Amino acid sequence: MSKKYAIGVDFGTESGRASIVRVADGREVATYVHPYANGVIDEHLPGSDMELEPDWALQDPNDYLEVLKTAIPAVLARSGVDPADIIGIGIDFTACTMLPTTADGAPLCFLPQWRENPHAWVKLWKHHAAQPEANALNERAREAGFGDLLDRYGGKISSEWFIPKAWQILNEAPEVYEAADRLIEAADWVVWQLTGRETRNATTAGYKAMWSKSEGFPPPAFFRALDPRLENIVDEKMSREILPLGAKAGGLSEEAAAWTGLLPGTAVAVANVDAHVAVPAATVTEPGRMVIIMGTSNCHMVLGQEFKTVPGMCGVVEDGIIPGLAGFEAGQSCVGDHFAWFVENALPADYRREAEERGVTAHQVLEEKAAKLMPGESGLLALDWWNGNRSVLVDVDLTGMLLGATLATKAEDIYRALIEATAYGTRLIIETFIEYGVEVNEIIATGGLPNRNKLLMQIYSDVTGLPIYVAEAEQIGALGAAMHGAVAAGAAAGGYNAIQEASRHMARLREEHYEPNPEHHAIYDQLYAEYVILHDYFGRGENDVMKRLKALRTDIKRKK
Amino acid sequence: MSKKYAIGVDFGTESGRASIVRVADGREVATYVHPYANGVIDEHLPGSDMELEPDWALQDPNDYLEVLKTAIPAVLARSGVDPADIIGIGIDFTACTMLPTTADGAPLCFLPQWRENPHAWVKLWKHHAAQPEANALNERAREAGFGDLLDRYGGKISSEWFIPKAWQILNEAPEVYEAADRLIEAADWVVWQLTGRETRNATTAGYKAMWSKSEGFPPPAFFRALDPRLENIVDEKMSREILPLGAKAGGLSEEAAAWTGLLPGTAVAVANVDAHVAVPAATVTEPGRMVIIMGTSNCHMVLGQEFKTVPGMCGVVEDGIIPGLAGFEAGQSCVGDHFAWFVENALPADYRREAEERGVTAHQVLEEKAAKLMPGESGLLALDWWNGNRSVLVDVDLTGMLLGATLATKAEDIYRALIEATAYGTRLIIETFIEYGVEVNEIIATGGLPNRNKLLMQIYSDVTGLPIYVAEAEQIGALGAAMHGAVAAGAAAGGYNAIQEASRHMARLREEHYEPNPEHHAIYDQLYAEYVILHDYFGRGENDVMKRLKALRTDIKRKK
Repeated sequence: MSKKYAIGVDFGTESGRASIVRVADGREVATYVHPYANGVIDEHLPGSDMELEPDWALQDPNDYLEVLKTAIPAVLARSGVDPADIIGIGIDFTACTMLPTTADGAPLCFLPQWRENPHAWVKLWKHHAAQPEANALNERAREAGFGDLLDRYGGKISSEWFIPKAWQILNEAPEVYEAADRLIEAADWVVWQLTGRETRNATTAGYKAMWSKSEGFPPPAFFRALDPRLENIVDEKMSREILPLGAKAGGLSEEAAAWTGLLPGTAVAVANVDAHVAVPAATVTEPGRMVIIMGTSNCHMVLGQEFKTVPGMCGVVEDGIIPGLAGFEAGQSCVGDHFAWFVENALPADYRREAEERGVTAHQVLEEKAAKLMPGESGLLALDWWNGNRSVLVDVDLTGMLLGATLATKAEDIYRALIEATAYGTRLIIETFIEYGVEVNEIIATGGLPNRNKLLMQIYSDVTGLPIYVAEAEQIGALGAAMHGAVAAGAAAGGYNAIQEASRHMARLREEHYEPNPEHHAIYDQLYAEYVILHDYFGRGENDVMKRLKALRTDIKRKK
Repeated sequence: MSKKYAIGVDFGTESGRASIVRVADGREVATYVHPYANGVIDEHLPGSDMELEPDWALQDPNDYLEVLKTAIPAVLARSGVDPADIIGIGIDFTACTMLPTTADGAPLCFLPQWRENPHAWVKLWKHHAAQPEANALNERAREAGFGDLLDRYGGKISSEWFIPKAWQILNEAPEVYEAADRLIEAADWVVWQLTGRETRNATTAGYKAMWSKSEGFPPPAFFRALDPRLENIVDEKMSREILPLGAKAGGLSEEAAAWTGLLPGTAVAVANVDAHVAVPAATVTEPGRMVIIMGTSNCHMVLGQEFKTVPGMCGVVEDGIIPGLAGFEAGQSCVGDHFAWFVENALPADYRREAEERGVTAHQVLEEKAAKLMPGESGLLALDWWNGNRSVLVDVDLTGMLLGATLATKAEDIYRALIEATAYGTRLIIETFIEYGVEVNEIIATGGLPNRNKLLMQIYSDVTGLPIYVAEAEQIGALGAAMHGAVAAGAAAGGYNAIQEASRHMARLREEHYEPNPEHHAIYDQLYAEYVILHDYFGRGENDVMKRLKALRTDIKRKK
């Protein structure tokens, strides 16, 4: 087995990354990044003057093919690995990132007659223009008695998800909707291109398209309640054959073998989502240990033996992360983004100068100064809602708050208060899971922040009272994708029969970890209690001032 | 009368200013500033290594004499006015700024045996080390049934005022208390030095030492309730002869004439306070028009026909501003200080750079950008409590809050929100006055901010819905002091018999003024309603989180 390798391809927002890892121990032997030529399309369509409206975010599916054609051969060459020793390929993708195609998988935007229609292109995960459809969905589905279904997703479906995006196509470009034989996640579309076979994966189906293992997609009555024209969307545009993660979607086609330099027939795993492959890649395949991907936002994932409805979560999907277990997901919509906002909009000139003179980042200067403070010493408390609240309030109209400022308040006090606020938000998510019967005993961190901000990690440990371990892999998505490739190949081919086994061999934690400081934890208990009072006061309807201010702001900007 | 002049001497925190003004029309013909050699003494006593504790702030009374000896001859020389044409002198002072003296007026700190004792020096208005005495006073006086007396001062006596400062001397240096034949406001002490006669003025007695025209100083039972040793403080250390403003304290002594170059016998007015002389110097001698001195903090003064107890005011004193009327004072402890804090601690480097490149202040850059916003457009709302709340909550333990922040929030949004918050605070003070029967129809602004920040003035007008006029005089304190000098001289000497008459001739408003924009006022009505809800939630006990955070902060800093 030590001579066998798997390839993981991680499709991000701006680029795709291919990594080759050893199946025996998960070590990365080479990696290669290929940027998307058309990147995020949010101003005008490529080769066209047509301007997009705000909130639009598209991609070009050809950019995904270019990753296969460029990054896989390049990483093969870098590694010196014999293609015969590559036993499997897995991919992970942003989601919900979806597109309309013909019955044979051709994206409509590849066809000349549709090329000028923005609805023929890929709608990227952060395309937010389907908010009217999301609002209508949430209202009409509940009215029609499908509230339980919404409650699996924290009570509200996001405008970022599959059904609002599909409905937006129908509303704004019914001719594109009509012409589309398939509406499909880009993740599944890429696997289709690799294998020549259409498959759909349980993760995007479950978390983004309201599918569940026991009930399938929502019934026609659900879609009819939204819009009679949507009634048969599942029959007409989708596939009901949803494969579990790690299943083999097929063997690499001759055409894809030619693109990539790999052997035809190489096992290709069913597609997956970037956040969700990170869980086994961070060593977690059992209940009790929560994986948090910490970056511009936080994504919290934890497994459970039983399906539970926990209020304010992003979703719970059976088999959604690890086959045989319920996968729970929650999120905080603004974490690293807080600190980036602060540095861009509120960093005093002398801090900036210090960073420049010392050749360090402004974040490092702030972290050093903030690390000298004890919990409670700043006197500040913030609500981490600069970009709304995902879990557990599921309310994009909430806004940020800072309280406790005096004439002695310094930049590092505010910076630390923002870190602490995101830690309180995470603790509230964890306590909500526990309250509803989902066990959380430990945190495994991955993503960009754990590598950059030790203070943040210690504060999260002190606030939650839980130990925090850090996943070893730098490219957690590519590793997780490759692990699923090794499972798709199976033990007989030198891979693994189950993701749990792959995780045991291929995933590792760092030795360094964080334990809660009991003295700091006791102070944070007091501060967290204050956070909860304000969280509920502003977030649960007692004083809707944030929403009223936001509505007034929108109104005034519109009239101006 | 056109050849007659009066001198006003304005004793500030860092320097004294003498101005010569024409009695006929109040025009300043010359002005001269003399900085105090020892300034604010807050580190160690002059000529001594003895270190002062934090919160101490002393002055050297010799610095006041040097102003008389330097600034008056200098301004006489500059003006070319014949001393025979100077008919009167008035002074105004910071308050409560007080000192212990012998029976003949010698400051104890002038005597070698007391020179090393900090309690022998002048306690400046911002000496805050008598907080324990202020706390004890407020508690014991109310327990002893003197709550009504406290309620004249918003329910609490400040640590900055006369009785806590006197009591601190007794507690910490009983030998100094014992040796002091007099405890006296520096304002009255300077007039004593000019005339050779001890007088006390109604303003400092009323606003700072709890005197009232009908009841005099508090009775011995009041002082006994605080501390039996204080029982006879009024008999032993003070003078009960309180003179109304504009009264003649006496004629200039031979000695003071020699210091100043003025003629012996020149009328000297009873002392006054900087804020209070500003009222008639801003044309106000009748009810209905509120004078606001806008600077680092705001001081609001308005006159009433009747004595009323208005909750949360700094004080109400009969004859305290204008003889024959009740003088009401309220305050906001942090106004310009907010904006200074913001520029020092939260101004992004590119704003700083823009200011430097354009050769303007950072405030100007922020003001220009903030002026482009409509009310409500920032989506932000702040509570203006970075330095506690003076009126109407009288609570130094309240802290600042900012709400409504998003990832799109810019520095100018926050800057404008801070300006608006101080305007809401002023509106709340005005509405409280009106609710308790004190008329306010118009605002007259003076102080440093009206000259520097037109946006702020317009926002105050838009928020309050009142027109705002601006006093013409740049040196409002010196003009007000000189006006009282002209009244002390009297009409027979070419002056005036009443301050109302002096005000009519000597004070003026600028032509330019501010009228509320009805559209903006309507939006601010909505925002102000939100401010009031949060003001009451955080300020009136529903959620004392600010106090708990501040107490925790103090506790942690102490243990650290």
